[in-house]
Amino acid sequence: MKIDILTVLPELLESPLNHSIMKRAQEKNLLTVRLFNLRKWAVNDYGQVDDYQYGGGAGMVMMCEPLANAIDELKLETNYDEIIYMTPDAEVFNQKMANQLSLKENLLVICGHYKGIDQRIRDNYITKEISVGNFVLSGGELAAAIIVDAIGRLIPGVLNDETSALFDSFQDDLLAPPVYTRPAKFRDWEVPEILLSGDPKKIEAWRHDKAVELTRLKRPELLGDDE
Amino acid sequence: MKIDILTVLPELLESPLNHSIMKRAQEKNLLTVRLFNLRKWAVNDYGQVDDYQYGGGAGMVMMCEPLANAIDELKLETNYDEIIYMTPDAEVFNQKMANQLSLKENLLVICGHYKGIDQRIRDNYITKEISVGNFVLSGGELAAAIIVDAIGRLIPGVLNDETSALFDSFQDDLLAPPVYTRPAKFRDWEVPEILLSGDPKKIEAWRHDKAVELTRLKRPELLGDDE
Repeated sequence: MKIDILTVLPELLESPLNHSIMKRAQEKNLLTVRLFNLRKWAVNDYGQVDDYQYGGGAGMVMMCEPLANAIDELKLETNYDEIIYMTPDAEVFNQKMANQLSLKENLLVICGHYKGIDQRIRDNYITKEISVGNFVLSGGELAAAIIVDAIGRLIPGVLNDETSALFDSFQDDLLAPPVYTRPAKFRDWEVPEILLSGDPKKIEAWRHDKAVELTRLKRPELLGDDE
Repeated sequence: MKIDILTVLPELLESPLNHSIMKRAQEKNLLTVRLFNLRKWAVNDYGQVDDYQYGGGAGMVMMCEPLANAIDELKLETNYDEIIYMTPDAEVFNQKMANQLSLKENLLVICGHYKGIDQRIRDNYITKEISVGNFVLSGGELAAAIIVDAIGRLIPGVLNDETSALFDSFQDDLLAPPVYTRPAKFRDWEVPEILLSGDPKKIEAWRHDKAVELTRLKRPELLGDDE
């Protein structure tokens, strides 16, 4: 799988993409992430890629021309399954979307900045808009890092223990049950006895009950979301 | 404001915290972000901070002892308003939470990894659990970077143009209206005439209508969420 990221701040993404699981995924050639600096397609020698917004108001808007030229050039070389724009005013990213996107071959991710990108690029180039949540960030870079991580770890072979991702929260629309490790007693705090029982059936039933109980308590909307 | 982050992967957070707006906030002394490597409090010379989970199953659990000792030590020096654990099975982060947390003095953010942290730490130390969304990441580091960014940019003086944050999506429970910049015609695509009219009242009304229309279309649940 290949993910290209178009951004004015490629350096911001360096450490998240070059450590831990994302590093391993790239070393194993299971995932290629390439960063492109939008300023390469700037409209002048000052590296301009944004301008004041029509109609007035605070905040800059990313211009059509650099984005259109960048995307056109990248498309010559790669046939993208989706051209994604990271923006708060879009469908909110979730595990189902991560699962679906992890099956694609080539993605192009555009990071917005300032007040966002010119609407005409959204209308004419973008095939999918994704928000990582109902909050505003300085730019789309961290949002892009989030989706690359969530998608990348689902590619078979990326996680050391392939069964691990299957038992995460959300894969069955339930939150994960509580987890405990050694020692069985730390200060005054003990591990629930059933987890020490060695009875896999009882443990499985306890975990399922806890998962349902926690989901009902903390995130009841997930229980109604079962399609 | 001071935000301390406790993680097994401090190096993953370097570039997001040292560029752009987060860099500026720290240079202006409006925000101090400190990274602490949990392995400093490891239980042995191999740097062990995790172990197999009780009851069996794939994935490691972060142990009580390193976390408890780390938090105890950090608390000696700083009086934290909140000790936050980043985990997918928690309340989902939103702009209201960002606003509230931006008024605090001292935050400690714990990044989970693998299957998460031992439940006894959650029960006895954590004062607030935050999820950045209904998806699973390799670890809590990117989630921590997201909340630091969303909170940090709200600190007065951090953004260049202070009015800018006020007109972002979500600050009034509406998505932002479409934005356009020069040129007025790019290829065959034109800017809506009203934005070129120079009539601030009409433009204001158009933007409000568009914001409501987009919110209704893309994110109707936000309209019912007005407290």
